[in-house]
Amino acid sequence: MAFEQRRLAELANHDAFLRRHNGPEASDVATMLDTLGMDSLASLLERTLPAGIRLGRELDLDPPRSEAEALDYLHRLARQNRVARSYIGQGYYDTHLPAVIQRNVLENPGWYTAYTPYQPEISQGRLEGLLNFQQMVMDLTGMSLANASLLDEATAAAEAMALCRRANKKAKTNAFFVADDVFPQTLDVVRTRAHYFDFELIVAPAAEVAEHDVFGALLQYPGDGGRVHDLAPLLEAAKGKGIMTCVAADILSLVLLKEPGAMGADMVVGSAQRFGVPMGFGGPHAAFFATTDKLKRSIPGRIIGVSQDSRGETALRMAMQTREQHIRREKATSNICTAQALLANIAGFYAVYHGAEGLRTIAGRVHRLTTILAEGLTRGGVSLAHDSWFDTLRLTGVDARKIHGRAMAHDVNLRYFDNGDIGVSLDETTTAHDLDLLFDVLLDAEHGQAVSVLDAEVVEAGRSGIPAGSQRESEFLTHPTFRRYHSETEMLRYLKRLENKDLSLAHAMIPLGSCTMKLNATSEMIPITWPELARIHPFAPKDQVAGYQQIIDELADFLVEITGYDHISMQPNSGAQGEYAGLVAIRRYQQAEGQGHRDVCLIPSSAHGTNPASAAMAHMKVVVVECDDDGNIDLADLRDKAEQHAESLSAIMLTYPSTHGVFEEGVREACDIVHGHGGQVYIDGANMNAQVGLARPGDFGGDVSHLNLHKTFCIPHGGGGPGMGPIGVKSHLAPYVSNHVVRPLDGVEAGSGAVAAAPFGSASILPISWAYIKMMGARGLREATELAILGANYIAARLGEHYPVLYKGANDTVAHECIIDIRPLKADSGISEEDIAKRLMDYGFHAPTMSFPVPGTLMIEPTESESLYELDRFCDAMIAIREEVARVEAGEWPADNNPLVNAPHTMADLMDADWERPYSRELGAFPSEAVKAAKYWPTVNRVDNVLGDRQLICSCPSIDAYRE
Amino acid sequence: MAFEQRRLAELANHDAFLRRHNGPEASDVATMLDTLGMDSLASLLERTLPAGIRLGRELDLDPPRSEAEALDYLHRLARQNRVARSYIGQGYYDTHLPAVIQRNVLENPGWYTAYTPYQPEISQGRLEGLLNFQQMVMDLTGMSLANASLLDEATAAAEAMALCRRANKKAKTNAFFVADDVFPQTLDVVRTRAHYFDFELIVAPAAEVAEHDVFGALLQYPGDGGRVHDLAPLLEAAKGKGIMTCVAADILSLVLLKEPGAMGADMVVGSAQRFGVPMGFGGPHAAFFATTDKLKRSIPGRIIGVSQDSRGETALRMAMQTREQHIRREKATSNICTAQALLANIAGFYAVYHGAEGLRTIAGRVHRLTTILAEGLTRGGVSLAHDSWFDTLRLTGVDARKIHGRAMAHDVNLRYFDNGDIGVSLDETTTAHDLDLLFDVLLDAEHGQAVSVLDAEVVEAGRSGIPAGSQRESEFLTHPTFRRYHSETEMLRYLKRLENKDLSLAHAMIPLGSCTMKLNATSEMIPITWPELARIHPFAPKDQVAGYQQIIDELADFLVEITGYDHISMQPNSGAQGEYAGLVAIRRYQQAEGQGHRDVCLIPSSAHGTNPASAAMAHMKVVVVECDDDGNIDLADLRDKAEQHAESLSAIMLTYPSTHGVFEEGVREACDIVHGHGGQVYIDGANMNAQVGLARPGDFGGDVSHLNLHKTFCIPHGGGGPGMGPIGVKSHLAPYVSNHVVRPLDGVEAGSGAVAAAPFGSASILPISWAYIKMMGARGLREATELAILGANYIAARLGEHYPVLYKGANDTVAHECIIDIRPLKADSGISEEDIAKRLMDYGFHAPTMSFPVPGTLMIEPTESESLYELDRFCDAMIAIREEVARVEAGEWPADNNPLVNAPHTMADLMDADWERPYSRELGAFPSEAVKAAKYWPTVNRVDNVLGDRQLICSCPSIDAYRE
Repeated sequence: MAFEQRRLAELANHDAFLRRHNGPEASDVATMLDTLGMDSLASLLERTLPAGIRLGRELDLDPPRSEAEALDYLHRLARQNRVARSYIGQGYYDTHLPAVIQRNVLENPGWYTAYTPYQPEISQGRLEGLLNFQQMVMDLTGMSLANASLLDEATAAAEAMALCRRANKKAKTNAFFVADDVFPQTLDVVRTRAHYFDFELIVAPAAEVAEHDVFGALLQYPGDGGRVHDLAPLLEAAKGKGIMTCVAADILSLVLLKEPGAMGADMVVGSAQRFGVPMGFGGPHAAFFATTDKLKRSIPGRIIGVSQDSRGETALRMAMQTREQHIRREKATSNICTAQALLANIAGFYAVYHGAEGLRTIAGRVHRLTTILAEGLTRGGVSLAHDSWFDTLRLTGVDARKIHGRAMAHDVNLRYFDNGDIGVSLDETTTAHDLDLLFDVLLDAEHGQAVSVLDAEVVEAGRSGIPAGSQRESEFLTHPTFRRYHSETEMLRYLKRLENKDLSLAHAMIPLGSCTMKLNATSEMIPITWPELARIHPFAPKDQVAGYQQIIDELADFLVEITGYDHISMQPNSGAQGEYAGLVAIRRYQQAEGQGHRDVCLIPSSAHGTNPASAAMAHMKVVVVECDDDGNIDLADLRDKAEQHAESLSAIMLTYPSTHGVFEEGVREACDIVHGHGGQVYIDGANMNAQVGLARPGDFGGDVSHLNLHKTFCIPHGGGGPGMGPIGVKSHLAPYVSNHVVRPLDGVEAGSGAVAAAPFGSASILPISWAYIKMMGARGLREATELAILGANYIAARLGEHYPVLYKGANDTVAHECIIDIRPLKADSGISEEDIAKRLMDYGFHAPTMSFPVPGTLMIEPTESESLYELDRFCDAMIAIREEVARVEAGEWPADNNPLVNAPHTMADLMDADWERPYSRELGAFPSEAVKAAKYWPTVNRVDNVLGDRQLICSCPSIDAYRE
Repeated sequence: MAFEQRRLAELANHDAFLRRHNGPEASDVATMLDTLGMDSLASLLERTLPAGIRLGRELDLDPPRSEAEALDYLHRLARQNRVARSYIGQGYYDTHLPAVIQRNVLENPGWYTAYTPYQPEISQGRLEGLLNFQQMVMDLTGMSLANASLLDEATAAAEAMALCRRANKKAKTNAFFVADDVFPQTLDVVRTRAHYFDFELIVAPAAEVAEHDVFGALLQYPGDGGRVHDLAPLLEAAKGKGIMTCVAADILSLVLLKEPGAMGADMVVGSAQRFGVPMGFGGPHAAFFATTDKLKRSIPGRIIGVSQDSRGETALRMAMQTREQHIRREKATSNICTAQALLANIAGFYAVYHGAEGLRTIAGRVHRLTTILAEGLTRGGVSLAHDSWFDTLRLTGVDARKIHGRAMAHDVNLRYFDNGDIGVSLDETTTAHDLDLLFDVLLDAEHGQAVSVLDAEVVEAGRSGIPAGSQRESEFLTHPTFRRYHSETEMLRYLKRLENKDLSLAHAMIPLGSCTMKLNATSEMIPITWPELARIHPFAPKDQVAGYQQIIDELADFLVEITGYDHISMQPNSGAQGEYAGLVAIRRYQQAEGQGHRDVCLIPSSAHGTNPASAAMAHMKVVVVECDDDGNIDLADLRDKAEQHAESLSAIMLTYPSTHGVFEEGVREACDIVHGHGGQVYIDGANMNAQVGLARPGDFGGDVSHLNLHKTFCIPHGGGGPGMGPIGVKSHLAPYVSNHVVRPLDGVEAGSGAVAAAPFGSASILPISWAYIKMMGARGLREATELAILGANYIAARLGEHYPVLYKGANDTVAHECIIDIRPLKADSGISEEDIAKRLMDYGFHAPTMSFPVPGTLMIEPTESESLYELDRFCDAMIAIREEVARVEAGEWPADNNPLVNAPHTMADLMDADWERPYSRELGAFPSEAVKAAKYWPTVNRVDNVLGDRQLICSCPSIDAYRE
């Protein structure tokens, strides 16, 4: 039988994807093992992976499917979703993603495989895209500053609450005001967050904002039911009471509505989803966060700033970047360390492509259609809850059951309020024909409302749902970037120019330690733009999303088997959110067990900064556990600390393999110690790529882990987001994961508030991980892990002759990444790890992770997807660079004028008529044969970080600046 | 009502696409008119377009649709096609286009918007792709040389027949042998071609090949019914009789079958469709054409050769290119002047990605499944017509009606032979599960055949359908290019590297006179990869292709209205094929009218070389009509020649506006003269972009025109194909357009043989033109034409101050293109039009058309899609170049060392340590601000054409050559 199956598998070519995903071919593996002096992969693993944690069997997954089969199957599932016309609104709207942006950004690996732009010299394209996004947000909100996106509107509002508290030190109260017409899912997330910050929430009508003693307030604009508040008096009154204000605003409405910035808001947040990003059953989309100038140094998230390069040219970069890797740890009120870069770029490009005039046309049309609808409904005898609107009407006193019946018959989704009211939100895809249908659904038969007649009268009467005082008067998107690219030809060239400025996986290996930049296969990416997955509202009726539900359930089953946990919660839409969600689940569980007093979280000193930040946000006290010289947790210290805090021990957070890239032998013991003292074990899943198919955190002691689907499970980095951070939990924690107020989840406690706006986080990218697992199968996943470990050890072996390799395991091997130490070399030559990182750009590579987890080092993770050819190209570059350093050490080149400190070299350098350097142009810019054959050019010289942070400029430079 | 419609259109944003397609915005139009000293577009047109030919009304087309609406509507049509499992074979097979190739080549404007690689310095990417294709064909066929693709297998076979005749001068006979198991559609096309060459066709069993007195012979391998002929004795016998032989071979079968080159074939042709290119209801696909070394100078079509650049580096180019523009005119036996570059690249990349091993797996699996099928059928009591096979079985003596019924019920398409036999062809998408279904369809119930059981026995018995002597023994695809890119990561990077070598519309304007490089909008391109359009066999039952039929009918209706003709024939799959098809229709009509003796074709001296070539192929005598000094047809000479040849006058071929870019005033008179002498008028549609919405050839005298859908109607050039050349005819010619033997067309005479393999040519790209017209509407199409004319006049005005502009119209305006004269400047400075063309590359542009229609000139066509920004950028570059020439004229720079003769400048130039040029590096490579902001680099220096043609090398260079 097994034989027969194998033969049929042969006939079906099932393992075809495996050789596409994995870089090294069989002969390469032999070469690599040979370099390591080992005779088989098995013996490498024998020496690397502690016996005590080995899985010892193949994962129990379905046989692998070919790319075509997986896509066929997935398409069948997708078609079980039903794409209805959505008028639900509530923060999610159908939209037209312009085809030129869809094809050349969202579906283009040149954009989606790029990493976060930590290295600005090779990231100017997407930095410009993100700057456009910031400028667009600033213009539309009327604020002085905007960040480069957050995860979703609800978490942005929660961040705003925290910022209100941080920025309003004068306020003596810990109460926060939330208007009662804030979107329910936003309130849900804010409530969760507030609980662990120990804030009191006051939910009341917006008009009462200044009547409570609070440090801050959140208003919705327009309100949940569509009403356009006159914000000016409310914000003024709040300000008078010393209350910081945040307005959650609809971005399209701001085209026509008076901007909150002009009315005194301190912060404006919202979602940029409807600027071209498909609803995708909840995400990913870019949320925005804008503030006054006063708050610029405390704005959460990433922010793009304008600086200069070493030639004095304008250059963009992530500003205040140092905040990120060294996030404020124990004192944090935010653990944000990612953005939705790809989606923010799309929204920004949507604005660039339409320009102010185009957006006015779109918003004007949406509003006009809404006004026609309001007029027709009123004439048809329906009462509206509000006499103002932008795109949303709330019908009151209607027969909701009857309307529901007609709506279902017509594949029309409406919003059904608990009190029987009905909500209708229009969007840019709504047509006059849709209105005809809406009248049929919302009015009784024979209603006699004709759109063309109504429109004539609306236009003649000059009717509008926007109160006179709330109309926008100021210009926006006046910067040249928003005025030039309105033809498809110009837009296409703009997108391609930006794309070609950036180094992505489409060019070269991005050997980031701990960030697993592996293949994002095309077949995995194809489904995300299928309309059956893209055009689904997150609150669509359950019977319309059977396909999504099955994809999610199947993926959860896969992850359960891969991790050894019992249940997966898909809600957290980033790794940091996953950490937070996991700790919150632990706290809820302990609360329910009468152990709510437990609040100490042990964290090894080597941990990533988000770990303590997440613990702090979960209202836990962080106690640091020391590491030994090899980077391993000091078990003695752990035992001491656990004992010392036994009464109040809540949890430990540890990363496995460690952030030092080592499979610690003592991990099981560490878990046992914590369990023995009544604590729970949180295992950070950042390094799951070293374990899949070989070991399972759920087996060796974990109670909960988050998984970075954007690392281990092939969701692309998108140039700095999206990510997905679902958590796996043991069954005792399962009832305490995040629930959702709009769409309650089975088996989860009703009181477990949400951590993200949508029930399943960024659902539309889950098929990427689904497809990866489906196409790899158990053997494929295991082999990938083995090759990832082989690759790291190969690099350690080749580079070990030239650089010290830190933190090897017990048997002198590393896990899936290795750390090389630059400190001795720096002491001798003055050449820093940053110089090496920048010099690598001249060789056509992205730098490894710099100075994390150890200052003065480079951490390298090759992943299984890189071919031996590419691994060698990288090692050759690193070795050549070491030789260059030697020439500096030998005094052949001055310390302040050599190819390393001058790196990266740009075309501008080569143009210089006078070349006053002790090396040739060729050595500067074309240091290897590979580069001569195919050169990738950094587009700016080394960027000045200090200047950029000192003079923080986060808006688009004037066109003159570009000209210089 | 009109008002109301306008208002509703406002609500629907219907004209949104117009501003995407057209480059200049309203304010730009005003600026441009101002430069021309005109106050309105109307007055420009008044002065440009002769009153006598103006349409004088708006075209009668549906109102424009937005991109989303058009795609929705088209998707509804597409879903009216039914995607059945296809086992029809007969030259078309389902295939898996690897996703990485689909997304990054077929769906990537960086590949599909490129022009034919006439300028090798900015085309090395696709030239390498095409060289891969040639190498792949050479390896698989075992021949010494292959071209870079032809239109389809049938026309390739017809070209082979012509080449047999040209190359076999010794043969005294005009008879050509065609084996009776050549595909019927191939025979159909060969028959048409033979008729007008005056060849006799002898159709007989392959075994008789040497028994007839013929100059050449065509065999099919494997035969139409699947039989694997032992070709060796047949080819040997033919050779003994002095017969040139051509084998039409299945490319996948050649992986397992002995290659025809090893058995003495003189030529091998076939289709590369099944190497990853969707069937697409007939095309486009790449045909291949391979020959012995002896025939290398007479091989038809384009051929990529290896040469050197001015630095002595390896550089690719189109070899023997001069043949093309100056095609052998009156003596031609081929009018081929295009290829299927995009599809050839895809097929080549398919082979690169799979490599020899991957292809062996695929072909082996297909063959093993076929063998299992044969075994099961035989056991089930079915007789097979042949005892050898690769992938195709012919079932004989079966109950075809019953099988047909079961097949229809299971959505299975089989081939039904006239004699009741049934054909089944498997392909790489066939699975074991499909075989189960096939047994159910082909055998009676309770057949008891189980694939796994059969497979075990087939494997154990070592059964195969390939006779021992016909098994392939030689290696193939051993070149490094076919061995390295097997992981998706490596393949992606390879594709991106090649893409980034080439200049396409994604970078800059490609201002080619007569080649209309306008926007190929993404929304127009999206449908072509929908499975409902891509996975349709051209001979699928009519009831499965209702969607295609309606798209084709609607597009025909649009084109009828646009051209003023009565009927459109969609069959010709290139412009040249359209010319041939049009002339053949004229000849057939005249024959039917008893005027078959009419065989004189008048052609103005300014005509494109394909015109006389096409006439010669239609067995017409070409009589040249002179042009006056302004490039207009000399009406007096026309009158003389028409009178002189009145008895035998068949037709005139003219281009309108003329190839000189002028709306000739006398066109109507010219048509009248020809009609007055009993002739028909063929109007070449190459310049339709200057007429759409303004004038119609069918109104001012044309009887037939071909339309270059890849020029005027937005099908992208694909880097040198595909194209589509449907013809419009007046009703009297309609019965005489091409029919199709497999799928007869309504209203066409049964005897009218085909000109292309598929009934509707390259059907799958017709939706591009459909969408363009649908989204533009009548006003949009007219405005596009007007802006195209405005743009050309704007360029003529700006450049006119620096270069002489040739051939203006009566009122000193040009049509949609303008010609600038380089001869005076060349006489003064020695700088040639080629130097200017190459220098434009340094400025980031593709050159205009060089030396056509007048030697020593540049012809510039901006199209409506270019923005004023880009037009100005181009004009600025041309003016700056003129100033550079002035410095040579002034003696400031030597004639043999200046930025013009040294152009283009490459990175290698800049690397030179010693810069021995009288201008700076910066002036060389970064001559403009625009270039400094975004540089496109030519990847090789000026290519040596003479060397390349002298030492013709058309295979991949060894890896060492790349290394140098």
